[in-house]
Amino acid sequence: MSTETQTPSSARIEADPDVPTVRITREFDAPRELVFRAHVEPDLARQWLGPDSITMDIEEWDIRTGGAYRYTAVRDGAAVAHFYGAVHRVNENEKIVQTFGFEEMPDAVSLDTLVFHELPGGRTRLESLSVVYDFESRAGMLASGMEVGIDEGYAALDRLLARLSGADG
Amino acid sequence: MSTETQTPSSARIEADPDVPTVRITREFDAPRELVFRAHVEPDLARQWLGPDSITMDIEEWDIRTGGAYRYTAVRDGAAVAHFYGAVHRVNENEKIVQTFGFEEMPDAVSLDTLVFHELPGGRTRLESLSVVYDFESRAGMLASGMEVGIDEGYAALDRLLARLSGADG
Repeated sequence: MSTETQTPSSARIEADPDVPTVRITREFDAPRELVFRAHVEPDLARQWLGPDSITMDIEEWDIRTGGAYRYTAVRDGAAVAHFYGAVHRVNENEKIVQTFGFEEMPDAVSLDTLVFHELPGGRTRLESLSVVYDFESRAGMLASGMEVGIDEGYAALDRLLARLSGADG
Repeated sequence: MSTETQTPSSARIEADPDVPTVRITREFDAPRELVFRAHVEPDLARQWLGPDSITMDIEEWDIRTGGAYRYTAVRDGAAVAHFYGAVHRVNENEKIVQTFGFEEMPDAVSLDTLVFHELPGGRTRLESLSVVYDFESRAGMLASGMEVGIDEGYAALDRLLARLSGADG
């Protein structure tokens, strides 16, 4: 049995009992090419990433095998956190494997695999699986309030995808 | 209790019972600035990396925060494996956090943290901690014959460090 949290906007957050991983699953009413684009294009990513109270100031967003990213979370004009990571591998429209960390806790790092599953009816299931070095680090992750950023971020992604689908159709 | 293997050249390989990690510990008779240099400078890295039967053809070796690396293992003139990864973070002389994968098993990936500990008498303890997503992947890693590459590679690094120390002294 894994610990499972069903958030209001229906992202599922699961903590595996046997390994220090967190799995986040969310469905989107848009084709996976579009959901993938919203992750790799900086002008799209900045429109949905993170909680509503935060603006993402993207300094680098090079989502390709061997690339890297770096952005600052800004609230009320002040930098509140600096996030960064390196991109291990990208399979176009299918998968992104990357690291995730932030300057404020330089030893905290996770390895994240995002898989974009094609669903019938032009829908997409996004599955993100993160692993950290130990259960204490995972407990810290789960206690960080991450679900707010996930729910609000993915709700903003819903709206962005609706706009993009409208523009395409 | 962790499973522990003491190899002839004294690299210790430990598999944690509770999390899917592998810890490799090895001491070197050289100052840590030199051991660190041998990891970040491609002309040095190619001289010791991997088992004796293999030549490392380095295509990219950009060991800095946000960098990446890629090399081909060549045996008897033929490419036998393509390794690559992305560099999450580098603290000069202290730490390298990076991913590790190879083209032949695109889903296999580990997150590796290398820590360079300064020891008395100008010696260095190198500790490498890798985490993978599950215990099956770790079992595959441990069964891969990795200890040959580690022992022969680190023995070659011993010889390189002795030459570099001689050149410096």
